[in-house]
Amino acid sequence: MTTRATERRVIEIIRHASPGGAGVRVGIGDDCAVLEPSAGRLVLATTDLLVEDVHFRRRYATAADVGWKSLAVNLSDIASMGGRPRWALVALACPEGVTVEEAEAFFTGLLELARAHDVAVVGGDTSASPRGWIVNVTLLGEAAPASVLRSTAKSGDVIAVTGALGRAAAGLAVLERETTPAGVAPAALDQVKAAHLRPRPRVREGQWLGAAGGVTAMIDLSDGLATDLGRICEESRVGARVELARLPQDAAARAVAAAVGGDALAWATGGGEDYELLVTCHPRAFTRLADGCADATGTPLTAIGEITPEQGAVRYTDAAGHEVAVARGFEHFVTGRL
Amino acid sequence: MTTRATERRVIEIIRHASPGGAGVRVGIGDDCAVLEPSAGRLVLATTDLLVEDVHFRRRYATAADVGWKSLAVNLSDIASMGGRPRWALVALACPEGVTVEEAEAFFTGLLELARAHDVAVVGGDTSASPRGWIVNVTLLGEAAPASVLRSTAKSGDVIAVTGALGRAAAGLAVLERETTPAGVAPAALDQVKAAHLRPRPRVREGQWLGAAGGVTAMIDLSDGLATDLGRICEESRVGARVELARLPQDAAARAVAAAVGGDALAWATGGGEDYELLVTCHPRAFTRLADGCADATGTPLTAIGEITPEQGAVRYTDAAGHEVAVARGFEHFVTGRL
Repeated sequence: MTTRATERRVIEIIRHASPGGAGVRVGIGDDCAVLEPSAGRLVLATTDLLVEDVHFRRRYATAADVGWKSLAVNLSDIASMGGRPRWALVALACPEGVTVEEAEAFFTGLLELARAHDVAVVGGDTSASPRGWIVNVTLLGEAAPASVLRSTAKSGDVIAVTGALGRAAAGLAVLERETTPAGVAPAALDQVKAAHLRPRPRVREGQWLGAAGGVTAMIDLSDGLATDLGRICEESRVGARVELARLPQDAAARAVAAAVGGDALAWATGGGEDYELLVTCHPRAFTRLADGCADATGTPLTAIGEITPEQGAVRYTDAAGHEVAVARGFEHFVTGRL
Repeated sequence: MTTRATERRVIEIIRHASPGGAGVRVGIGDDCAVLEPSAGRLVLATTDLLVEDVHFRRRYATAADVGWKSLAVNLSDIASMGGRPRWALVALACPEGVTVEEAEAFFTGLLELARAHDVAVVGGDTSASPRGWIVNVTLLGEAAPASVLRSTAKSGDVIAVTGALGRAAAGLAVLERETTPAGVAPAALDQVKAAHLRPRPRVREGQWLGAAGGVTAMIDLSDGLATDLGRICEESRVGARVELARLPQDAAARAVAAAVGGDALAWATGGGEDYELLVTCHPRAFTRLADGCADATGTPLTAIGEITPEQGAVRYTDAAGHEVAVARGFEHFVTGRL
C-alpha cells in the first residue's frame, strides 16, 4: 500500500460517506476537527486500540469487519454511560501489501455502523505498519443529563443484564476452528460468528436505561461478566452475588457448545465481547425497567443477582445455593481500559 | 509485561500525576471520560498513531521520549489552530518483555509535557502487541473564538515560519548513525537530538498568532515545509513562491550537515518533524505579527515567500531568482493525516 495514495482515497471515501454531519464546523482535512456539542451537554470521550492477532484475526475477519468492530467497541462505551455518540477519529496502520481496496473496505464497514448511529468521522491518521493491522478509534459523544457511572452501585441493588451472554465467545470458538462444527443449524452459526465479528452495541438500550431513572450503575460487557462485574464492585466499593441459573445464556451459543464440547456457562461468564450492558438498579425499579426496556428497544433485561455490602467479594452460586468458581476473561484478549 | 498488572499501575500513575484537572467530571476509570468544555467554546479533536520502527526507534528513543513525543505531535496540531489543549486519551500496546517500569517511564515522559501545557489524561487503553510499541494519543482542546484553518490563505499573503528549520532531521541523522559525528559541538548535538526526540510544540505561539489578527492560515510542520505548504495551497486553492535564501535554517543543523555530509537545505525543506508553525498573513500585518510574536513568546517569525494565485503551483527560487526543485518529506515517515 502506498500510504499517500491511500490517505487521499480514504479522505475521499470519508468525505463522500460522512459529509459534514451535525455539529461539525471543520471535519476531515485540517489539523484538528472543530466540533460544536449541543448547548449545555457534557462531552464523553473514549478510545480503543485494536491490534491484529491480539484483538482480531485477518484469517476470518474481513477488513470491513475490522472497521465495523473498531467503532462498535467504542459505541458500547458511550452506551454504557447512557450517552449519545457523535464524532469519531480513526487511525489506521496497514502492513505492506495491503491494497487501497482493503483500506477502503475497512472504512466502508466502519461507516456502515457510523451511519446507523448518526456518527460522523471527523479526523484520523493513516500510517504504515511493520506487521499487522493496527486500528485506533476515539469516539466522542454527549452525556445524558446524568451519566450512569460504574462507581455508584449500592448494596441491595438488583444486578441485571441486557440480551443474552456467551454468543461472541461461541462465535470465536467457531471461527478459530479449522472446520465447521457438525450438527449446528447454519442460522445459529451465522448468529454467533456475527456476534464476534460485527457486535451490535446497545446504544439505544443504554440511552433508554440511563434516562428511565432507577439505574444506579452501568458498564458494558467487553471483558466478560466476571471481569466487568468485578470492576463495578471495585469502583463502587461493594460486593455482588450472582445466581448462575439466572444467567440469560444465548441459545445459539449453547447449541455450539454442545457440538464442539465447549462450556457455554464459561462463555457466558468469561467469554467477553458480548457488548451487552450490565446494570444495577433499585430493587423496586427492576420490573419497570425490564418491561420498559423490552417495550422501547425490544431487548430483554434479566435480573441475575444482587449487590452486597462486602467490598470486593463477588460470589457465584449454583442452583443449590452453593458458591462456585467461574471462568474469567479469555487471555487472548489481554486488554485493559484505563 | 502482564497487561493487567500494568493497567492497574498505569491507572495509579495517571491518577496520581494528573489528578482530576479542570473540566474533568469523570476521568480515568470509567467507560468514558466526562468533560466540560468552557462555556461557548467549540471543541478541537486530533489523533496520532505512532508505531515503532515507523515513527520512532527504541534503539535511541527511551520509553519516556516516546511518551513525550506522542503527546507533542498532537499538541502541535492544536497549536496550529490557535487552540488551547485540555484533555488527552492515551492508548499503549507493548510487546512481550516490556517491564512495568518501562510502561511507567512512557507515562512519566508523557505526563511531564502534559503538565507543562495543563493537559489532563482522562482515558485510554492498554494492550499487548505482537511486535513493537504502538501508541495512539487523542488530544481534545478548545478552539479560539476564530480557529485558524489551512484552507483560508489568499493570493498576496506573506508566508512565514516560526523558529528555525532542519533541526529534527539533523537530530535523526545523528541518532541513526552508529558513531557520534566528529567536529560538532556537544551542545549542538544535544540540541538536534532533543529536537527529534522531544519536540516542543509551538502552543503559545499558535495561540498568540491566532488571536493577534491578520493571520489567514496556519499549519504545523510535521511532514516538512514542502509537503505542508503544499497542503495549505491545496486546501486554499492557491499557489506559493518560496525564496530558499530566506529560510531560517537552524545553526546546529548546519553544523551537523557540514560534519556528516548532509544537506541542511534538504533537511529544512523536506526533513519534517520540526513542529514549527507555517503561517500566512496579510502583507501589512507581517511586521506587527513578527515583532509581537517575538515579544510575547521569544520565538522569531520569518517571512519566506508569498502566496500566489496559480492553484497548486508551489515554486522555490534560489538567490538568483531561478526556480529549483527541493527535497520533500522523508519516506521513512510514511504517515498521513486525515
